[in-house]
Amino acid sequence: MNPGLLLVVSGPAGVGKGTIVRKMMENDTKFVFSVSATSRVPRANESEGKNYYYKTREQFEEMIKNDELLEWVEYCGNYYGTPRDLVCREIEKGNVVILEIEVDGALNVKRLFPDCVLCFIIPPDFDELEKRLRGRGTDTEESIISRLSRAKEEFKYLDKYDYLVVNDSIENATQRFISIVQAEQMRTNRNQSLINKFKNI
Amino acid sequence: MNPGLLLVVSGPAGVGKGTIVRKMMENDTKFVFSVSATSRVPRANESEGKNYYYKTREQFEEMIKNDELLEWVEYCGNYYGTPRDLVCREIEKGNVVILEIEVDGALNVKRLFPDCVLCFIIPPDFDELEKRLRGRGTDTEESIISRLSRAKEEFKYLDKYDYLVVNDSIENATQRFISIVQAEQMRTNRNQSLINKFKNI
Repeated sequence: MNPGLLLVVSGPAGVGKGTIVRKMMENDTKFVFSVSATSRVPRANESEGKNYYYKTREQFEEMIKNDELLEWVEYCGNYYGTPRDLVCREIEKGNVVILEIEVDGALNVKRLFPDCVLCFIIPPDFDELEKRLRGRGTDTEESIISRLSRAKEEFKYLDKYDYLVVNDSIENATQRFISIVQAEQMRTNRNQSLINKFKNI
Repeated sequence: MNPGLLLVVSGPAGVGKGTIVRKMMENDTKFVFSVSATSRVPRANESEGKNYYYKTREQFEEMIKNDELLEWVEYCGNYYGTPRDLVCREIEKGNVVILEIEVDGALNVKRLFPDCVLCFIIPPDFDELEKRLRGRGTDTEESIISRLSRAKEEFKYLDKYDYLVVNDSIENATQRFISIVQAEQMRTNRNQSLINKFKNI
């Protein structure tokens, strides 16, 4: 009764995606993080296979050519994509695969995997988002302005998502995701074999 | 962000519907139980306005005529129906109205209120259901056989429900319902005004 699930998590830079996803992983061994491939240069605190699989542009383009990516986008001059293999394997095992990707990628995944669950994390309000972006101190003023403007663009696609998760606190938001996963795993359309068992009594 | 909700709960006799619904109500003041009207005679431990509104067949037929019922059915020789008023009022207030009704009624409500959430409680397995029915000691052998046969009929409609909730323990099942409610309240299609706020930043 706990079918595998593809949980897609989006949200503007600074909304707390990374922290919430980490908390979810701590909470349940059934959660598996799908590490993306990227041609972007690693940040100081990032490491290969944990945050991303770091590729050259040439390597990334090779992966595209070989159809090894579930989805990919070019964003701010860098490639980002989801290696197909791991995702399919873990879902089949009954695990919950968490994909943290931006809007275009999420909508592409939904087209390929209509059964995936699209979640968008929103801040309690827009001012709070700006405050958090400035607070983390990793971005230049120019980058902050660009990210806030990007956030406004992303909000235009909220309707395309299945769930809106407000991040008013990391604990609340994490708990909300756990509820979404638990509820989705009880959906009749994900439990056809159990239904058949009861229909054939 | 906590929109009102109509939660429809079905399940075979003996599966624990009543107990789970009571537990949910204890858990959250936002839950409101929709008391049905019936032409059935009260059982020893039942009371007016708590378990049902008890009506004569004539009074019930008058309510049907005046369109005061959201849905109604005739089942085992008695009428059962949902007074429309309370349900609409509570949903508008942002409360979660719980409707405990059988399959035909549930499907009727879904046609009238496509936004309602249909949940079906199943036992861990069929033998367990028979055990529980015999255990509660309120039914004759004939009634037990009729209820088990009715259960098999009801299982044919499992596909029409949104969620399957296994009652392996009252605590687990109650917690599963809380997750369903919490998840449903985060659905984008229930939060259009919040979405519009973010789209118009």
